Amino acid sequence: MCRIQNYRSGIVCFFILTFKILTLSAQKTTATANVNDDYNEFWFVNYVNPMIGTKNMGHTFPGATVPFGMVQLSPETNQEPMFENGKYNPETYKYCSGYQYDDNTIFGFSHTHFSGTGHSDLGDFLLMPTTGELKLEPGSAGSPKSGFHSQFSHLNEQAEAGYYKVLLDDYQIQAELTATERVGFHKYTFAKKEKAHIVLDLIHSIYNYEDKNVWTFLRVENDSTISGYRQTNGWARTRTVYFVMKFSKPISSYGHKKYDHIQYNGFYRKFDETKNFPEMAGKNIRAYFDFDVEEGEELLVKFALSNVSTAGALNNLNTEVNHWDFDKTKQEAQQKWEHELSKIQIGTETEAQKTTFYTALYHTMLSPVIYEDVDGSYRGLDQNIHQSDGFENYSIFSLWDTYRALHPLYNLIQPTRNNDMVHSMLAHYDQSVHHALPIWSHYNNENWCMIGYHSVSVIADAIAKKTTNVNQNRALEACVNSSNLSYYDGLDFYLKNGYVAEDLSSSSVSKTLEYAYDDWCIAQIARNCENSALTNEYVKRSENYVHVFDPSIRSMRPKLSTGQFRQEFNPMDTHGQGFIEGNAWNYGLYVPQNIPKMVDLMGGKATFSQFLDQIFTTPIEDKYIEKNEDITRDGIIGNYVHGNEPGHHIPYLYNWTNTPWKTQERVRMIVKTMYSDKEDGLCGNDDAGQMSAWYIFSSLGFYPVLPGSPTYAIGSPSVRNAVITFENGRTLTIRTKNQSTANVYVDKIEWNGKLISGFELNHFDLIEGGELVFYMSNKPRKVK
Amino acid sequence: MCRIQNYRSGIVCFFILTFKILTLSAQKTTATANVNDDYNEFWFVNYVNPMIGTKNMGHTFPGATVPFGMVQLSPETNQEPMFENGKYNPETYKYCSGYQYDDNTIFGFSHTHFSGTGHSDLGDFLLMPTTGELKLEPGSAGSPKSGFHSQFSHLNEQAEAGYYKVLLDDYQIQAELTATERVGFHKYTFAKKEKAHIVLDLIHSIYNYEDKNVWTFLRVENDSTISGYRQTNGWARTRTVYFVMKFSKPISSYGHKKYDHIQYNGFYRKFDETKNFPEMAGKNIRAYFDFDVEEGEELLVKFALSNVSTAGALNNLNTEVNHWDFDKTKQEAQQKWEHELSKIQIGTETEAQKTTFYTALYHTMLSPVIYEDVDGSYRGLDQNIHQSDGFENYSIFSLWDTYRALHPLYNLIQPTRNNDMVHSMLAHYDQSVHHALPIWSHYNNENWCMIGYHSVSVIADAIAKKTTNVNQNRALEACVNSSNLSYYDGLDFYLKNGYVAEDLSSSSVSKTLEYAYDDWCIAQIARNCENSALTNEYVKRSENYVHVFDPSIRSMRPKLSTGQFRQEFNPMDTHGQGFIEGNAWNYGLYVPQNIPKMVDLMGGKATFSQFLDQIFTTPIEDKYIEKNEDITRDGIIGNYVHGNEPGHHIPYLYNWTNTPWKTQERVRMIVKTMYSDKEDGLCGNDDAGQMSAWYIFSSLGFYPVLPGSPTYAIGSPSVRNAVITFENGRTLTIRTKNQSTANVYVDKIEWNGKLISGFELNHFDLIEGGELVFYMSNKPRKVK
Repeated sequence: MCRIQNYRSGIVCFFILTFKILTLSAQKTTATANVNDDYNEFWFVNYVNPMIGTKNMGHTFPGATVPFGMVQLSPETNQEPMFENGKYNPETYKYCSGYQYDDNTIFGFSHTHFSGTGHSDLGDFLLMPTTGELKLEPGSAGSPKSGFHSQFSHLNEQAEAGYYKVLLDDYQIQAELTATERVGFHKYTFAKKEKAHIVLDLIHSIYNYEDKNVWTFLRVENDSTISGYRQTNGWARTRTVYFVMKFSKPISSYGHKKYDHIQYNGFYRKFDETKNFPEMAGKNIRAYFDFDVEEGEELLVKFALSNVSTAGALNNLNTEVNHWDFDKTKQEAQQKWEHELSKIQIGTETEAQKTTFYTALYHTMLSPVIYEDVDGSYRGLDQNIHQSDGFENYSIFSLWDTYRALHPLYNLIQPTRNNDMVHSMLAHYDQSVHHALPIWSHYNNENWCMIGYHSVSVIADAIAKKTTNVNQNRALEACVNSSNLSYYDGLDFYLKNGYVAEDLSSSSVSKTLEYAYDDWCIAQIARNCENSALTNEYVKRSENYVHVFDPSIRSMRPKLSTGQFRQEFNPMDTHGQGFIEGNAWNYGLYVPQNIPKMVDLMGGKATFSQFLDQIFTTPIEDKYIEKNEDITRDGIIGNYVHGNEPGHHIPYLYNWTNTPWKTQERVRMIVKTMYSDKEDGLCGNDDAGQMSAWYIFSSLGFYPVLPGSPTYAIGSPSVRNAVITFENGRTLTIRTKNQSTANVYVDKIEWNGKLISGFELNHFDLIEGGELVFYMSNKPRKVK
Repeated sequence: MCRIQNYRSGIVCFFILTFKILTLSAQKTTATANVNDDYNEFWFVNYVNPMIGTKNMGHTFPGATVPFGMVQLSPETNQEPMFENGKYNPETYKYCSGYQYDDNTIFGFSHTHFSGTGHSDLGDFLLMPTTGELKLEPGSAGSPKSGFHSQFSHLNEQAEAGYYKVLLDDYQIQAELTATERVGFHKYTFAKKEKAHIVLDLIHSIYNYEDKNVWTFLRVENDSTISGYRQTNGWARTRTVYFVMKFSKPISSYGHKKYDHIQYNGFYRKFDETKNFPEMAGKNIRAYFDFDVEEGEELLVKFALSNVSTAGALNNLNTEVNHWDFDKTKQEAQQKWEHELSKIQIGTETEAQKTTFYTALYHTMLSPVIYEDVDGSYRGLDQNIHQSDGFENYSIFSLWDTYRALHPLYNLIQPTRNNDMVHSMLAHYDQSVHHALPIWSHYNNENWCMIGYHSVSVIADAIAKKTTNVNQNRALEACVNSSNLSYYDGLDFYLKNGYVAEDLSSSSVSKTLEYAYDDWCIAQIARNCENSALTNEYVKRSENYVHVFDPSIRSMRPKLSTGQFRQEFNPMDTHGQGFIEGNAWNYGLYVPQNIPKMVDLMGGKATFSQFLDQIFTTPIEDKYIEKNEDITRDGIIGNYVHGNEPGHHIPYLYNWTNTPWKTQERVRMIVKTMYSDKEDGLCGNDDAGQMSAWYIFSSLGFYPVLPGSPTYAIGSPSVRNAVITFENGRTLTIRTKNQSTANVYVDKIEWNGKLISGFELNHFDLIEGGELVFYMSNKPRKVK
């Protein structure tokens, strides 16, 4: 048997894997064989469709990247500014990842993107190949040929894991993209002999606005190498990205245009800086590089990033791509994906389901991203250069989203990386002037986005599952300090009074609930450290959710600093009612650390089960949706909003009532209706992989309702079978009997041949390896 | 005998030195003793008056610094912007160093300054101590109490080498400043119990204008430590200075105000960032730190700079000032000055002359400045961090000025530092995307200020005088590349046609003359490298001055690209006539590499001598002065403009005629009339020490008319006697016989007892040590 060790790149034992999958999904051998005929080498990669989620609100991008790669090289179909005449442009939101499937204009290819976020930044270093007359203005999508942009058609577009191709109609240039962790690799093929230009747009940003660019700097180092950097003040307040770009042939001429209001220009007035002057600097610059190309000629561009320096970028470039073989890099990128995706092998009813599944798995590996140079150096929160010591440093932690299922998923299939991420969080803590763990870390910045201090959940989950080697006392200290940051988000009042007061800090109920859960996580770490004083303190804090529960209406409800609940209160509304990205009905059920107590508060198991039914069946009113830009009607079942995270555990809550079969029913319904293999296959923002991680877990039949504990709640698998290969070399095989679209109910479950009672799985059992068999049925087994 | 080795800091053998000086200037023992009584320890330091040059156009600053220190901590008496309503504010120019003696308002103390430049930048990190109501606006000098500024009086002000003190009248705060190489040390003494504030103005700049600030970043690391940086786009296009500031007591509260137009603020809207929020960032910020102080309390502030990072600044701070003993640092600063100044010991007629002399010597050590952290790391031109290896890295090379006499002076008394500077120039070359040596280097930037490529002169002079250990072939390559930078300043045409064409590049005659001289320097290096091809090529290039000499009018004259001399030509005008900072009469005589040939061209010795007389006696018309902001009427003798550099060799040119006694006469006149010990004691910009270096040489009786050769032209010493101690431990003693104000003529000169014929000294003779005796007379010795 091919034991796949933990490695970051390499060759997949694809024969054996393919053999295994063929065995598991015998009914699909024909289709599988066909796919293999087409691609020869890769199996799992073929089931990735990066277009999923690019239509509407998925906010994913179709471009080329490797797993957890710093470079995410993808087309941009928007260039409208975030503000027009000082007013927010509502179109901005849909371009969080730079691309919308409905567009037919490409402005170029930029090197950094978020995947699935509900706010944005990045889009660094837009490259656009053109021919003919040089245009330095991007132009408007509505006006063909108004700038350097080009029309394109999906017919001539191909998106794969690690590879993207499109024909730029206006110039008849075939653009192909691939990447390594830190290098974007472009291949532009020209249709005819012509004057070609590569525009390097240093102004372009996702979520662009005046003054976002702080500074840019460019050097033409020699006839084919450019170095430089861009510094922005965006979502990340102080962010600098360095690059080195190499062309496969010498530049014939070059220049730039500066779009600054220039009051003073030092002594540069001596020169015509705009043409063939090798040093350019300013706030807003677009540069161009000219080439004479022949018919059918390929111009290759390697574009390396660093967050340290141009010297770092050059080292990254030379280390990762020391050749001009585009196909080799593409091959290696896809091998990396094949390796990661093959960790979960599934058999399914349909090919579409495989595509949905493997694309979801793909989407769980687009952030966090590696945030260090090949030599381990990176720029820290204090803006100094640090060296990762014994770990690989990561950034982009969208923790309010990802602590729920993404990091628990990593603890199953990416424990080494998750341990690196825990170390990265502690490094962030060490560098933080607030002495706080990340809330929403973004390069070397804290964005402070959303609520809670959920690094503690990620750390507690890793400790609970024994996947981290961090010093636990140091981790505990970091968690304690982070949870006592008095000036953070209503925490001062919470620390004194056990709840966040709505009149002092909005979304107060959500904050109280998340804090209480986080405090439970800290208690678990403290217990592990045998620190009984802190354990007791944080257990007590973990009960703070009761302070925002109004028994008179059996609902979580915003409380004022006076200690009174707020009079005006609409539990259906998602805005201004003490919650964020949710209303009292769904966010109000967020007490994962003590679900039995919450069920009690809500009136006991029967009443609570009915309340859950009510959530799934009472249609939410349109007026509440209109206000909520994160979701579309597609992402909602009744009042259950799958497009946002606070309710992701809700379908599993039936397990704590006498109607656990309803969890099975709901989960299967959500898996079926909220995800698909189409461009609009995500019903809301993928949120840095959390939506996709929910899908992976739920498809496999279980879900981490309480991160920080080693338990999973059992749902209903929608795969036919699966083999999960752990880093320890063992495998967990999931089989189903009687699986079908109709057979959503679980009759019984066997673990290594023994019947399981209850609806809970233990992490340590699973990673020891074994076989989990679900006996499916079209009728609920109405057990308690 | 106390042999003073080359060292950078330490204790001066002042007893022996003092003894020696007392012997030499026996007639002044009483005064000397008095001075010693006052100060106990320092002798030379007492003759430094940093106020010299702070009135009118000297552009020096009175603040505290150590020799060649990166930190130059000095009061600012101006805060008016460089542009008002888009128009240049003509007041800007006089504030090149931030201070004007005629002012009575101080806006604070900033940490970086140029000394004597004719253009400006810097003024980083203005600190202002205040009491009472917090004011964050600087206010206007014309409106007392309109902002945080304070009135002050020279009666309560004291400026010394390494120390500055002033009473801030508005707050009755005694401010004292001292410094190490990289740390400014402030001591503020408060008159009464009060709420005190330290304003940290990150907007203040010398030569300030909108958008000059690119970005600033601040962290309150703990209750008494602040770190941060400021990035500016000024004369240095891309410059970042990092700092760490430590207070001697905990801050009671703090905050900041942001003066930015904010369109988008990420998620920082969650916080009240303005008060006690430990991380601040933006383009334009003023921060404040509050303290409760008692009557008579001293608040100390240590402020370290780095051009690498805040980590570097912290290391600089901890390495250089690991205590809170202000007096110790002051003592050490003055010891460093005492050591450097004691290298030339003079006896004079008057105390005033000593003050003028030692202040001039002091002014020769305020730039270049050390540009590296204590660990040898520095930010290079490529914006990457480099490590100086085997040398100390320097920046601020105002080479068009300083190659003339300042670097030659260093080759006498600072050869180790000058060697470091040569290495710094070659490091600059290595990092330059233009593959060019510095023109006007400013931190990690090339300002491109003024004309020529005069690094080659500095390198040639160091090689000629054997004071550098650089690889000469590498140096030659750097010089050759620098002199072939085709897009630089008319060089393309010069390379093809042997002159710069006025219609293509203004100041074309000055450029041609400087290039030809620089090319002569390169020829010397090439000859030293035994590269005969390059020697011949550059000897030929060194003759290019003939191409801009018009024999029909016996004058250098602008030539057009057609090969014709320009018709319109006024040899008296300093603007638009092919010259810069000079007219044809004075700049036209700049052929130091072949003075006999130039004398021939000008009609032979007699005619040329008459022409020189004409220069010194024909008054320049007012209309030409008005246009020239660099000089005042005080700096002019006839048409000789001592306030600018191109004529600095002119007084010595009589040596190449039959009237060398006129050199003696002119030099003595200039020394006497163009310099004094008063605030207005400099007749023009000190130009980074070049004016002062001229004074030092000329006072000692010789001058390096041709840097790049080991020869000096003899003038007329104005000191009574002098002892120069070289790094090799040997001493050169200069004695005069019959010296007096009237006895300006040199009757004869003896070197180690032997009569010298001619008017030339050789560097290698001098540094071997010995005695040079000038026999003075009130009558010229009319020899040929």
